[in-house]
Amino acid sequence: MSALNTVEPAVVDLLGVLAYAELTAFDRLAEDARLAPTLEGHAALARMAAAEIGHHQRLCDRLRELDVEPARAMAPFVRPLDAFHDSTRASTWLEGLVKAYVGDGLATDFYREVAAFLPEPDRTLVLETLADSGHAQFAVREVRAAIAADRRVGGRLALWARRLVGEALTQSQAVIAERDGLADLLITGTGDLNGIADLLTRLTTAHGERMSALGLAG
Amino acid sequence: MSALNTVEPAVVDLLGVLAYAELTAFDRLAEDARLAPTLEGHAALARMAAAEIGHHQRLCDRLRELDVEPARAMAPFVRPLDAFHDSTRASTWLEGLVKAYVGDGLATDFYREVAAFLPEPDRTLVLETLADSGHAQFAVREVRAAIAADRRVGGRLALWARRLVGEALTQSQAVIAERDGLADLLITGTGDLNGIADLLTRLTTAHGERMSALGLAG
Repeated sequence: MSALNTVEPAVVDLLGVLAYAELTAFDRLAEDARLAPTLEGHAALARMAAAEIGHHQRLCDRLRELDVEPARAMAPFVRPLDAFHDSTRASTWLEGLVKAYVGDGLATDFYREVAAFLPEPDRTLVLETLADSGHAQFAVREVRAAIAADRRVGGRLALWARRLVGEALTQSQAVIAERDGLADLLITGTGDLNGIADLLTRLTTAHGERMSALGLAG
Repeated sequence: MSALNTVEPAVVDLLGVLAYAELTAFDRLAEDARLAPTLEGHAALARMAAAEIGHHQRLCDRLRELDVEPARAMAPFVRPLDAFHDSTRASTWLEGLVKAYVGDGLATDFYREVAAFLPEPDRTLVLETLADSGHAQFAVREVRAAIAADRRVGGRLALWARRLVGEALTQSQAVIAERDGLADLLITGTGDLNGIADLLTRLTTAHGERMSALGLAG
């Protein structure tokens, strides 16, 4: 019983935060789609948004299977995730793409690390909903082309990416500080402080690779 | 050759107008989702939006098969459809639902009538993309509940629905006046003025049934 008691709230928390993250990702991608300079770009971002809502649906279905009302599981994460998006609203098409690629990439890596500590079937479910939906190549191509056309764009977008990461850290610290289950899962899963340091190193390395892929200084 | 020449522009026009209609429907449903009073409502409208983008994708794939760049096929319809949405922007959750149910219902009926005159495989493709995606029941339930709670809501929403229909007529007349292929298809397909009158009667009847389903005076 004790194992169940410590794991279950964290499972519900992780499914809940992910479900709300997918819903807000939908909103934001749908909003940013309208910043697209072409109908193709508009449709491309709209398709990414649609993929997020499919994931949201699967997570909510699983929560209902666990007899948890999805809205209740999402509730603790509404404020921090809304705060993140409100403080990092893209004002240009390229900012939106960087946010989709760099911001979602970092969040996805983090959720994937945490998911590794989950029991099945939730581990597989979460990993599947985090699988790349082909957004990456599109964003990389568009951002690189824009930087090639005007090198000053790269400097501005690198600053923007740094702001995204800063806000993401602020909000994720707030979430972990409030959700004991998630914090326990993270500490138990990683083993010790060295484990957490390793996790942070992996996140930082992958983030640096994404920045390089876009042609941005980290 | 002459049959091909008269039909093909109309096929491209119909696929193009539908593809752009689906893209704007996505935008608008995604925008209206954020007016939802609950996370469930928010997710429900987001799912409807996602269904539209799937249809958009299929229509664009077909246009590419016909060697037509989707953006080119959509271009003539960007202005009238944007004008329609700009002039009928929902300011409340219920207005958004009425627009999704009554406005999209009328448009869908009209496109379905025109699709009946298309050669295969486009007839089937268009009819499939127009198939109801389960939006209807959700909108009906929410609107009826709101009217039951406050009868004045019904009067305001009935006026709103009338405005939607007026704007839709204005914009569709503008489209047909400019697209000879679509006008030809409609006239050839219906046969004569009686045929067009019958078509209008069918549209009006179905519209009235949707208004009744919502509990609104036509």
